[in-house]
Order: sequence, then C-alpha cells, then structure tokens
Amino acid sequence: MDVKEYLKAKKEIVEKALDLYLPGEDAEPKIIHEAMRYSVFAGGKRIRPILVIASAEAVGGNEETVLPAACALEMIHTYSLIHDDLPAMDNDDYRRGKPTNHKVFGEAMAILAGDALLTHAFGVITRCSGKVDDSSIMMVLRELSEAAGSMGMVGGQVMDILSEGKEINGEELQFIHRHKTGCLFRASIRTGAILSGANHEKLAALTAYAEHLGLAFQIIDDILDVTGNEKKLGKKTGSDIKKQKATYPALYGLEKSRELAKKEIESAVESLKGLGAAADPLRGIALYLGKRDS
Amino acid sequence: MDVKEYLKAKKEIVEKALDLYLPGEDAEPKIIHEAMRYSVFAGGKRIRPILVIASAEAVGGNEETVLPAACALEMIHTYSLIHDDLPAMDNDDYRRGKPTNHKVFGEAMAILAGDALLTHAFGVITRCSGKVDDSSIMMVLRELSEAAGSMGMVGGQVMDILSEGKEINGEELQFIHRHKTGCLFRASIRTGAILSGANHEKLAALTAYAEHLGLAFQIIDDILDVTGNEKKLGKKTGSDIKKQKATYPALYGLEKSRELAKKEIESAVESLKGLGAAADPLRGIALYLGKRDS
Repeated sequence: MDVKEYLKAKKEIVEKALDLYLPGEDAEPKIIHEAMRYSVFAGGKRIRPILVIASAEAVGGNEETVLPAACALEMIHTYSLIHDDLPAMDNDDYRRGKPTNHKVFGEAMAILAGDALLTHAFGVITRCSGKVDDSSIMMVLRELSEAAGSMGMVGGQVMDILSEGKEINGEELQFIHRHKTGCLFRASIRTGAILSGANHEKLAALTAYAEHLGLAFQIIDDILDVTGNEKKLGKKTGSDIKKQKATYPALYGLEKSRELAKKEIESAVESLKGLGAAADPLRGIALYLGKRDS
Repeated sequence: MDVKEYLKAKKEIVEKALDLYLPGEDAEPKIIHEAMRYSVFAGGKRIRPILVIASAEAVGGNEETVLPAACALEMIHTYSLIHDDLPAMDNDDYRRGKPTNHKVFGEAMAILAGDALLTHAFGVITRCSGKVDDSSIMMVLRELSEAAGSMGMVGGQVMDILSEGKEINGEELQFIHRHKTGCLFRASIRTGAILSGANHEKLAALTAYAEHLGLAFQIIDDILDVTGNEKKLGKKTGSDIKKQKATYPALYGLEKSRELAKKEIESAVESLKGLGAAADPLRGIALYLGKRDS
C-alpha cells in the first residue's frame, strides 16, 4: 500500500469533517470562531484523527462511523497546542510556520479559543451516537477525559514545565513524553478500536502499538529540534536547548536517540503481528513517521 | 420548607462527592491536583450543582442519580472562574476572600488546572451511566458542551472582554449575562431534569425558570459589586466600575436594576406554577437568591 496516498486521502476527509463540525466563522461572537479555526486549520498532519480511522479499519470498522471522534481528537490536540504556546507556558511565537494563536488574537482570546475547542470536542463525540452503541461512546469519553486530563496530557505538560532548567533523568523524561504525547496517541488508537467493537485481544495489540508509536513520535520530535530544517518544520529549531528542556538528544545524544526511535517503531509494527492486512495502514504509518523530517 | 437548611444539606453532599470525584492531592503530578482542589474547595455556594439536584427532585428524580453530573457542573464553573481571573483576562487577585489560583500556583499552573477541571468534568458525567439511560447522558453532554462553549459561556466571556472600556447597550449587556452566567444555570437545571426523565412540558417550565433565575443572579452580582460588603463577598467591590465594565447599575442605575432583578425572580417562580410541591426547593432557591448579599 501507498501510505503517502493513504495519509493524503484521510487528511482531506478529516479536514472536511472538521470544517463541518466546527461553528462557522460567522457565528457570534465571530472573533472566537475565527481564533478556533485559525489554529485548527493552521496545517497539521492530522496524525491523531487518521490514527482513529486507521485503527477502526484495522478491526473491521469504518471511517464514517468514527469520524466525529476523530475530529474531537484533533480539536483536543489543537487546544493543547494553543495553550502550550502561551507566554505563561512555552511562549512560542510560531507554529507550523505561522504566528501562534495569541500572537494573532491576543492572550485572552487564545486562552478562550483553547477552552472552547476542548469543550466543543466532547460535544462532537456524541455525534457518533446512533452509529455505534452508546455504551462504547461512554467508554471513549471516559478514556479521553483521562488521557487528556491531569493524569494524562495535562499532567505531562505540568511535568514539562516543572522540569525546565532542571536536570532530569531518563525515567522523568519518559514520564513527560508518555503523558504529553503518548496519552493522546493511545487514546486516538483505542477510540477507533472501541467504537468499532474490537475484542479484548485486538484492543491490547493496538494499545501496545500506540504506546511504542507515541514514544517514537516524541523522540523524533526532540531529534528534529536539533537536526531539523526550520523551513520544513515551520518553527525555529534549537528552542528546546535554549529553554534547557529535557529531551532525548540532551540525555542520550543524537545517535542513541535515533536508535531508540527506530527500536520503538519496530516494536510498534511488531505489536500488530496478530492483525491481518487490515492493519497495513497502521504499519505503514509507523514506518512513515519513523522517517519523517517535519 | 426551610431553604437555608436545604441549601446547607445539599452543599455538604455536593462537597463530599466533589472530594470523591476529583483526583487526590497525592496523585502525580501533585501540584496540579493541589491547584485543582484549591479552587474547587475555595468555598463556593455550590448553586449550580444544587440546582441540578433540585431540578431532578422537582420532576420526581433523586439526588444520587444526578450527583456526578452535578459535580461536573461545579467543576466547569470552577474552571471558568480560574481562567476568568487570569492576568490576561480579568486580572483578579482575590476571589471568595482567597488569593486567586494564579496568585498561588502561577499562571501556567492556573491555566492547566482550569484545563484539567474542564476535561475531568466530562469524564465525571459518564459516571451517571448505569443509573440512567445512556441516551439521556448523551443529550446532557451535548447540551453541556454547547452551554459551556464558544456560543455559550465562553462566548459570553469573549463579549465581556471585547466590551471592556466601551459603551454598550442593554441588548449587548443581556447577551453577555445570558451567556456568561445564564447558559450554565440553564444547563444545570436542564441536566437534572433530563437525567430524571422529565417530559417535554416540565422541561420547558424548568428551562424558563432557569433563564429568569440566571439573569436575576447576574443583575444581583452587578448590584453587589456596587453596594456589597467586601468582607461578606470575599472580594473587592467596585472592580466593575474600575474596569469600565458593562453592568446593570451602570446602564440602568441601582434602583431600576433592583426592580429588574425582582421581576426576574418573580418570573422564575411563576414559571414553576405547573409543578407541584416537589418544586418547592426551586421556588425557595429563587426567593433566597433574590435576597442574597454575598
């Protein structure tokens, strides 16, 4: 299969759905809807929603059923980026080559746009109702609330902030990565599977895949902050070093970090061995992300 | 019935449940759970969760069934206060006589504590599952997402911020109040009723009650900012005037504002005329809130 084609096709579907599920820019108050849409349509890879879809397909489900949940995952991801970029947090001026939300709309509006996206995401998920069992939506809501909350993604951001300028060890670094990025990756993949009625065994395999993939993704992010091309990345590199952030290259060096990422990608693919050809997109995505340069 | 006793008893039940549903302070990362709990337990009146319960009772439901949803409403309310108090927003140092969240935990942690409370709230609601139909929980989730989102509470805060230092008319002021406070009041009362299987007629009556009550509550808030006792209120009065905020007293004067509040309270009680004695707590709450001085 051609994973690039797959990613491109699904990205288009996700973006059309995002446009459909978000309030229009003419809804009052206009400025907040502009701000929400500005960041949602600032050009992400849509990895999380595509993982929801690919995971659904891997267990015999289909894209149409899980599309609202896929979009909710992207909205939650986007809210987290808007808030992470705030002056009180990482204080970043650019993301994906564009000024960050608060640089365009001001801090107050950026905080509120993030809040609104997070709030909206939980409503959008209920649009899966009627297509799948309400009980599985309930399970997804519970998992997602945990994955994005104080013991998940927010918890990772907390530890990241607390660790700035401090020396931390490999275990603490893994905590940050597993929570900041890993939890939402895991939730994306489990969401697609749960809504598609995956059995226990398949859900476990996909969960293992998700955990390896999430960690690899973050290690590669750290590597790209050192070696990446600013133009391709759409943001300044070297910002982690400047902020004395804990990263894999800082802790293990570049070569060892590359090795670790490669190992995680291999483990991700290995986790899918009990799943048939339906999981090919997930395999392809893992190998593709292992080689990404932006 | 003794409304003060009722409010006191329900407040205790709500606070016990909040303690149960929130992650403990020893959960990692500890600081975020301290921050979340600091604001949740900073001494609110618990009006919204009590309205969820009273509304459930008014249509023959019971407290135990709706308690998770009641707590979720309080968590959403608390998150909105934490974010509203931020320097980029209203920049308030005190609330309920205590330093605001960001004054104690710093801006980054306050933003994250708000995010985490909002995220957690949507997970807590799913705890109603098993006690009531999943389809009614789905309806509540959808309504709550709307009520708290960019076209509800967040939308009200947006308009409030945009209107600072500007002259606005009565219609614009109503928009702010109806959204900032009204939407969550309305959602609280509808949540209790929906989860208790209220029929269409009763739901409509309770919705009307909620809309009048929410508006009265906000008008009285505005009045207290002018006339209130700082010690009782636990915050500095006169802050609306200082920030040139649009308020009822600023627009209509104190006397006319008091009249408007009284009329809304009367209309709230009048809305319940088709409901029997089970709605007495709601009637009592309206009259009580109409006379509040803090």
